[in-house]
Amino acid sequence: MQAIQKSNTNPGLTYLPNAPVPQITTPHDVIVKVKAAGICGTDVHIHAAKPSLMNRMGKVVPLTIGHEFCGHIEDMGHGVEGLTKGQFVSAEMHWTCGQCYNCRTGNGHWCLSQTVGGIDQPGAFADYVKLPASAIVPLPPELSIEVAAYLDAIGNSVYTARKVDVVGKDVAVIGAGPLGILAVALCRLMGAKKIYVTDISDYVLKVAKAEGADEVFNVKDEKQHQEFLKIAASDHTKRGLDVVLEMSGATSAYSDAFKALRMGGDFVLLGLPSGEMAVNFSADVVMKGLTIHGIFGRRIFNTWADMLALLQGEFLGTAKRLVTHQFALADFERGFQTKLAGEGLKVVLYPGGLPQA
Amino acid sequence: MQAIQKSNTNPGLTYLPNAPVPQITTPHDVIVKVKAAGICGTDVHIHAAKPSLMNRMGKVVPLTIGHEFCGHIEDMGHGVEGLTKGQFVSAEMHWTCGQCYNCRTGNGHWCLSQTVGGIDQPGAFADYVKLPASAIVPLPPELSIEVAAYLDAIGNSVYTARKVDVVGKDVAVIGAGPLGILAVALCRLMGAKKIYVTDISDYVLKVAKAEGADEVFNVKDEKQHQEFLKIAASDHTKRGLDVVLEMSGATSAYSDAFKALRMGGDFVLLGLPSGEMAVNFSADVVMKGLTIHGIFGRRIFNTWADMLALLQGEFLGTAKRLVTHQFALADFERGFQTKLAGEGLKVVLYPGGLPQA
Amino acid sequence: MQAIQKSNTNPGLTYLPNAPVPQITTPHDVIVKVKAAGICGTDVHIHAAKPSLMNRMGKVVPLTIGHEFCGHIEDMGHGVEGLTKGQFVSAEMHWTCGQCYNCRTGNGHWCLSQTVGGIDQPGAFADYVKLPASAIVPLPPELSIEVAAYLDAIGNSVYTARKVDVVGKDVAVIGAGPLGILAVALCRLMGAKKIYVTDISDYVLKVAKAEGADEVFNVKDEKQHQEFLKIAASDHTKRGLDVVLEMSGATSAYSDAFKALRMGGDFVLLGLPSGEMAVNFSADVVMKGLTIHGIFGRRIFNTWADMLALLQGEFLGTAKRLVTHQFALADFERGFQTKLAGEGLKVVLYPGGLPQA
Amino acid sequence: MQAIQKSNTNPGLTYLPNAPVPQITTPHDVIVKVKAAGICGTDVHIHAAKPSLMNRMGKVVPLTIGHEFCGHIEDMGHGVEGLTKGQFVSAEMHWTCGQCYNCRTGNGHWCLSQTVGGIDQPGAFADYVKLPASAIVPLPPELSIEVAAYLDAIGNSVYTARKVDVVGKDVAVIGAGPLGILAVALCRLMGAKKIYVTDISDYVLKVAKAEGADEVFNVKDEKQHQEFLKIAASDHTKRGLDVVLEMSGATSAYSDAFKALRMGGDFVLLGLPSGEMAVNFSADVVMKGLTIHGIFGRRIFNTWADMLALLQGEFLGTAKRLVTHQFALADFERGFQTKLAGEGLKVVLYPGGLPQA
Repeated sequence: MQAIQKSNTNPGLTYLPNAPVPQITTPHDVIVKVKAAGICGTDVHIHAAKPSLMNRMGKVVPLTIGHEFCGHIEDMGHGVEGLTKGQFVSAEMHWTCGQCYNCRTGNGHWCLSQTVGGIDQPGAFADYVKLPASAIVPLPPELSIEVAAYLDAIGNSVYTARKVDVVGKDVAVIGAGPLGILAVALCRLMGAKKIYVTDISDYVLKVAKAEGADEVFNVKDEKQHQEFLKIAASDHTKRGLDVVLEMSGATSAYSDAFKALRMGGDFVLLGLPSGEMAVNFSADVVMKGLTIHGIFGRRIFNTWADMLALLQGEFLGTAKRLVTHQFALADFERGFQTKLAGEGLKVVLYPGGLPQA
Repeated sequence: MQAIQKSNTNPGLTYLPNAPVPQITTPHDVIVKVKAAGICGTDVHIHAAKPSLMNRMGKVVPLTIGHEFCGHIEDMGHGVEGLTKGQFVSAEMHWTCGQCYNCRTGNGHWCLSQTVGGIDQPGAFADYVKLPASAIVPLPPELSIEVAAYLDAIGNSVYTARKVDVVGKDVAVIGAGPLGILAVALCRLMGAKKIYVTDISDYVLKVAKAEGADEVFNVKDEKQHQEFLKIAASDHTKRGLDVVLEMSGATSAYSDAFKALRMGGDFVLLGLPSGEMAVNFSADVVMKGLTIHGIFGRRIFNTWADMLALLQGEFLGTAKRLVTHQFALADFERGFQTKLAGEGLKVVLYPGGLPQA
Repeated sequence: MQAIQKSNTNPGLTYLPNAPVPQITTPHDVIVKVKAAGICGTDVHIHAAKPSLMNRMGKVVPLTIGHEFCGHIEDMGHGVEGLTKGQFVSAEMHWTCGQCYNCRTGNGHWCLSQTVGGIDQPGAFADYVKLPASAIVPLPPELSIEVAAYLDAIGNSVYTARKVDVVGKDVAVIGAGPLGILAVALCRLMGAKKIYVTDISDYVLKVAKAEGADEVFNVKDEKQHQEFLKIAASDHTKRGLDVVLEMSGATSAYSDAFKALRMGGDFVLLGLPSGEMAVNFSADVVMKGLTIHGIFGRRIFNTWADMLALLQGEFLGTAKRLVTHQFALADFERGFQTKLAGEGLKVVLYPGGLPQA
Repeated sequence: MQAIQKSNTNPGLTYLPNAPVPQITTPHDVIVKVKAAGICGTDVHIHAAKPSLMNRMGKVVPLTIGHEFCGHIEDMGHGVEGLTKGQFVSAEMHWTCGQCYNCRTGNGHWCLSQTVGGIDQPGAFADYVKLPASAIVPLPPELSIEVAAYLDAIGNSVYTARKVDVVGKDVAVIGAGPLGILAVALCRLMGAKKIYVTDISDYVLKVAKAEGADEVFNVKDEKQHQEFLKIAASDHTKRGLDVVLEMSGATSAYSDAFKALRMGGDFVLLGLPSGEMAVNFSADVVMKGLTIHGIFGRRIFNTWADMLALLQGEFLGTAKRLVTHQFALADFERGFQTKLAGEGLKVVLYPGGLPQA
């Protein structure tokens, strides 16, 4: 079968036209024929050989990557219940142990010994992917393929935007990549009062505005940056921001958030800043009564249930519009180059070739 | 009347034997005759002329300090309702505006324009103190004077220990000053599973153990430090700590907490570290799914209600035992020297002289 | 001044053209010149002399009624801070003591000794109304008068719809009066999955559908009633309803809810059923793991803040469209007859005469 | 092997000395050799052939009953992971599907298609019991056998007492059977302010007092009944009860609770009243702002984790002291007669004969 692999810890990815098809080896294995798969920011980092990821993947390469996808069940072990061949599914790619304290108390996303498909085990940039049955998420057959292709990412955004009650709140979303824009749409449809968005690209800010942002600021422009701080911290809100969703990983996002959040505000962190940063905890966290929420993955499967429900409404439109580029799997490199060039938003790959319009 | 003042922004405090008695000037003023007042860590910092505090107090000195106290109502304006002369009371010294978003939504402790008695306005290290009626907290007449003298501080600890559900949880308390030891006692009586305590003084660790800690570690000793990390992060807990209460302000507390907390743990911050510190948010907060809770003040008056209820039970004993030194107000300097020397735990001052045993 | 009074405990209301204007008697009184006032279901019950209300009001009649309104501050006592003459305001008409446990812990709506303006004290169906300053809610000057006229009622609905997280949930709203339809709109804009509505009037169900309901059922028709139970309890939801908002006061609503709610569902009660009803708590509450939430009033002032924020968005349109009838105060009887006839939805009265279109 | 069966839907139970030993038939079966098993109130109802239970069990009799137990793993299917032969375990006897909305969102105790061991499938009053591996709960080897024998019941009480935050609260526990007394001990050690207990047996009330109740009332005596209402609703609490835990199933408990709970109180229901009862929802629930919490089973496995943590502390003593009678399994009838006579509290049966003292 076809597969996109990380062959070693150097930059780049390899296309294998004749990789072996995964086989069922335990009673709970499920083989899914991949229909479509999204390129995640993490995949871009793997392509670029980001050191922290290469440290982790050094001992498993060569490895087929990819962890956002949808497809149809091709085969399954004899111990699998409640699923059928041909069923349209996606999967949670954080595979959990089911035994640890966190797994047994409804917090499997914090599993103490989880394995991530596409990073630690073979992933979904291939014709077929093998998964534990417990990770499978049945999908409604009518769900758009291009949206089903990146539910994992959508789930990150849903979990982030759902962490704090935003009804009637003044919210800033920092970073208008696909996840940030999804969060904007979510805050809008969940009843936020005002939604401010910052980024350093006019293109994505324009999309954010179209998807529900009240005001957008290109903070590369210091004038707009100061305007954001003024408006968000007091002029419009009268009290400072109630909630900041950090979805950029930029260090500057933190100083902006600490300035703009009101006493008792909530700072929700999804972005992954590089290395360490200096923070004045006394002034900016303790004496401000802030709560900081680190977001890892998606709640298994609470977030999936929320997401699939939300995708029955207006949110689907946003999720579809964010898919700006689609390629055949064999053309994966064009997809990665699109992301690396900062063009477009979500890129989806199709092992079976591009769908007919 | 007697009063202890910060005369200027230099180190030290001044005893005035003949300060003017505060007068009622608005219908909602209440004058309380001070019975006893606790020395808070902040008072020690004011004595030592800590720069951040001197910046703030520069424009109000000379000022009578002190913000933990109890006493009896001496007089009140004609607009005050529900209080009586002679009534035994304490007061919340974070005076709130009652008008802002936070005040009007049950979060007065996050008031956007609060004034602090003893820092911004004259405080309680005096024979009499003037307060807004809305800040008064009626006390049960039978409550021990020495405990009533430092309810403000006890409230900090109650709010900290109550922020996260500790029932059945593995908890570490970092910093065994009076607030830390109170938190130990609270976690014990609210159903925590195991309570680990770290500090750099054997004396306070011994008290912490006596008040309910399961295991204590003097982290000045690197061997004990490593043992704490090993035990707390896995050996005994199997999963890492569920909750860390940071009550020391030490920078090292943060790195210990990030190491020892489990995936999805809670890090509650009351201590005030000096300056900035470097933190790896990606590894230590986001990918660990941590929640960090900044604690400012006490909930007004939820924490007071909780505290007064808890002081009807075993918690009272701990609160009494922590008062290790008592002095007449005129001897305030001995009280401050006791604190500065790291001797004893809570020091209480009496404007009317020491109580007869 | 003009005033609509309940003169005695018999049916009917009296129009007084020359009632005395209320006077400031305490430093915290505020006199508001009433611009517009909504007729609430409770007012209709007062008109009809419902026994439970007449029991309560017997000792205070004659009394000016009316508790939903907006207007401008005419005068105020010297102790009032933060308000200005001429300011556009509404007020929470549950006047709270500010001293009890519930008031002091952020739950003033549960005040242990509250007084209700328009039932226990003179209300707002008049040219002027007197209020405690603590009850005043400043309004944005641009808020539509007809919506500002019934914020009290809107607040009931906001509190009800906000009690339980509805994001991604299957919700039924029972009773499509103004409060029910507002709840439909709120659930829609706060991210509910599917919203089912039942009532016994095709007219209001049609409005509910237009304001966001997915499916509506006239349960007077037994076929539609059974269809609702089938769809809501399993066909569409697969699991039963997650949430039922009871806004009708009908006894049958309870049996429908108990049938349709899933294991672990939430049943939120705003409607006031008459007298007692028989319930099988074992089968319908305990063994089903239900939570039942009684809703009284609105959170003071959390709900007001939420509501004013929500009215900055799409929710305003719904609130405006529900005002189907407007009359001069002197024509109040036509307003009440409209409500008694079950015609229209919200009726607003204007002491200064109908606004020019 | 020995087994206690419900042979048909008539009163009584049958002792089989030579029942067939359960066999492994699926890869996930676990066979446990039963060490000790508690008699639950439900077992007593099965013995007495309570109609609602006989309706359910009619189609499965003859069936081995018993659903509280501990023992050691005798054998297991080849698909079982993380368990070892000989391991000391108990099990959650509500067997869940793992597939439904509630199971997949951390609320397996609300599983939409659960099976109960000992009611729907063969139970634990036998030498061996067969269970799905997913239901097994590993126990610390040192846990007292007689306490391990009734963890299922202890879990009901832990879930009930944990449903609402009781720190600093005035709580009444209605019904001082084993579950009620366990709840008293839990409220005490989790920081409740005052704990009031009512029952109709002086014997159990005396035990409740010894285990932590502040005041107990035999409500069969109308004078004590009135005293309870007076004290709980106002005299001592000043505001009414914050929380009532209903653990009796008595109809009178409901009217007492509605009288004694404060505005905004919490009413937690574990007891199973017979048939319907008349309730005035308007006066007693809606206008009082009450929340009513139906408690079904135990959270899987959150409650188990809490419980095992709590049993590492003082709570263990209470759990041990409540075991007042122990018999060999063959003497089960004496155990049931003890319960039916209202003597003693918890009765534990031993398939292998009574332990040597």
